[in-house]
Amino acid sequence: MINQLVANIKKTGAPIVVGLDPMLNYIPEQVQQKAFAEYGETLEGAAEAIWQFNKEIVDKTYDLIPAVKPQIAMYEQFGLPGLAAFKKTVDYCKEKGLVVIGDIKRGDIGSTSAAYAVGHIGKVKVGSKTYAPFDEDFVTVNPYLGSDGVNPFLDVCKEEKKGIFVLVKTSNPSSGEFQDQKIDGRPLYELVGEKVAAWGSEVMGDEYSYVGAVVGATYPEMGKVLRKVMPKAYILVPGYGAQGGKGKDLVHFFNEDGLGAIVNSSRGIIAAYKQEQYAKFGAENFGDASRAAVETMVADIKGALENR
Amino acid sequence: MINQLVANIKKTGAPIVVGLDPMLNYIPEQVQQKAFAEYGETLEGAAEAIWQFNKEIVDKTYDLIPAVKPQIAMYEQFGLPGLAAFKKTVDYCKEKGLVVIGDIKRGDIGSTSAAYAVGHIGKVKVGSKTYAPFDEDFVTVNPYLGSDGVNPFLDVCKEEKKGIFVLVKTSNPSSGEFQDQKIDGRPLYELVGEKVAAWGSEVMGDEYSYVGAVVGATYPEMGKVLRKVMPKAYILVPGYGAQGGKGKDLVHFFNEDGLGAIVNSSRGIIAAYKQEQYAKFGAENFGDASRAAVETMVADIKGALENR
Repeated sequence: MINQLVANIKKTGAPIVVGLDPMLNYIPEQVQQKAFAEYGETLEGAAEAIWQFNKEIVDKTYDLIPAVKPQIAMYEQFGLPGLAAFKKTVDYCKEKGLVVIGDIKRGDIGSTSAAYAVGHIGKVKVGSKTYAPFDEDFVTVNPYLGSDGVNPFLDVCKEEKKGIFVLVKTSNPSSGEFQDQKIDGRPLYELVGEKVAAWGSEVMGDEYSYVGAVVGATYPEMGKVLRKVMPKAYILVPGYGAQGGKGKDLVHFFNEDGLGAIVNSSRGIIAAYKQEQYAKFGAENFGDASRAAVETMVADIKGALENR
Repeated sequence: MINQLVANIKKTGAPIVVGLDPMLNYIPEQVQQKAFAEYGETLEGAAEAIWQFNKEIVDKTYDLIPAVKPQIAMYEQFGLPGLAAFKKTVDYCKEKGLVVIGDIKRGDIGSTSAAYAVGHIGKVKVGSKTYAPFDEDFVTVNPYLGSDGVNPFLDVCKEEKKGIFVLVKTSNPSSGEFQDQKIDGRPLYELVGEKVAAWGSEVMGDEYSYVGAVVGATYPEMGKVLRKVMPKAYILVPGYGAQGGKGKDLVHFFNEDGLGAIVNSSRGIIAAYKQEQYAKFGAENFGDASRAAVETMVADIKGALENR
């Protein structure tokens, strides 16, 4: 699936991923009202609003982008109906030819980690049958529990040719509390980065590994170091736009060939219609605002890469 | 809810929690076959088998124990039907007066972390209505992302009087890869433990904080240190039994008053009928085997505490 991701990026010329993290307050009033009219102000109503919102954004952007990253928390908060909307979104995006990165940040050990792996990127056995319950292409994984937590994912990655992105240096202000702590003079995130390179060496695609890394756009200097520590890992870069990252900050996350990184924007794309820059579209044309925001983001990153 | 947990522990005299982590191969053939006869070898069939298995174990043990800890991965691997069985289990255990610790190990940042918090221990708004989607009493939280990940849970804990257990030192063999790394001469897990104490000081119950910690039974010496670092944190101790921990290893996780720790056993209780020691019950009486295993475990830990 890493080969598919690279192929999609080359085809679209867009090293970006749209974060499908639909907070209810991002969803235009008319979409919410229509869903509530059908299902009431219920969890089902919220889930329907999310699904209709996602569908419109995907329909208006899928030809420009290689991948989407639904954040499962935004669905899980609405319980089972929310998770049904997550699954519907995953399936729809795959139908549209998009690579789906499930932002699930799971991390446990042994058979528990294996359960997450089969549930999200693999197949689970029930008697003589097998099922692929959530069936994302990639998922994000938390490394705090060490190799015992990651290895079960690697087993499933090998079997299914799917992939993971391991949290290395996250985009948030307090990420340094633990991740930046110095161990023999080097920060913890570098140690995690070295592990990512080691884990990834066991599961290589054509050019890049099935094991990628998450490194926040908000820490460009650290990205520069980590790019070298994990040369074969695709870097998933959150924190662009709303969190403060800009195209010129991101050039060192990429390799010389313009590959090796994929930059996520969530709010900046899916709630673009709320920004002054795209207000002209109006809430009723929120999908067109998202499309325009994708075009602007791609131009920003491409421009930065060409001028480095 | 920490007050409720302490009250339940005092009432039962059992500082233990039963881990409801039902792998399909723990579930007796007759339970699986009955579920498959009704729903087929489907995700729904697996979910029904899990639910019937859990119900029997809870019915046979609830009067002896203060709490249960369903591991959500074991349900999530069966997709939406699996998660419906998780929710059914949570509700049933609460009806039985048990405190429910959702072992979800979630961890994200900002609004995403808030989404997990409201979805699992709080209430989510939909228009003018509010819902408590999963409604556990406690959840486990991964600290790798720092305070940005934990604070949204604290907000919900305050509002709902619920609690969290933060992963500090996990029970698995490779937990030391990152958690034991030395920072200015002290291991990372101590630093995380100090943060747990600081986070917890903001949300105190009568004797203990709403913020507890996970420290593996397999690392008793570290437990001894961490007990002092986080005097007001209840310690949730996995790794007893199947993973190797024994009652005598655990005394230092407890305070002098016999409180301050709650020891989890999953496989050792729920799949007790598969052990030689309880084989006499037979697969058909698996619930009775679990009850006997609970009694043995409580005696082991009580004995160790009395003899320390």
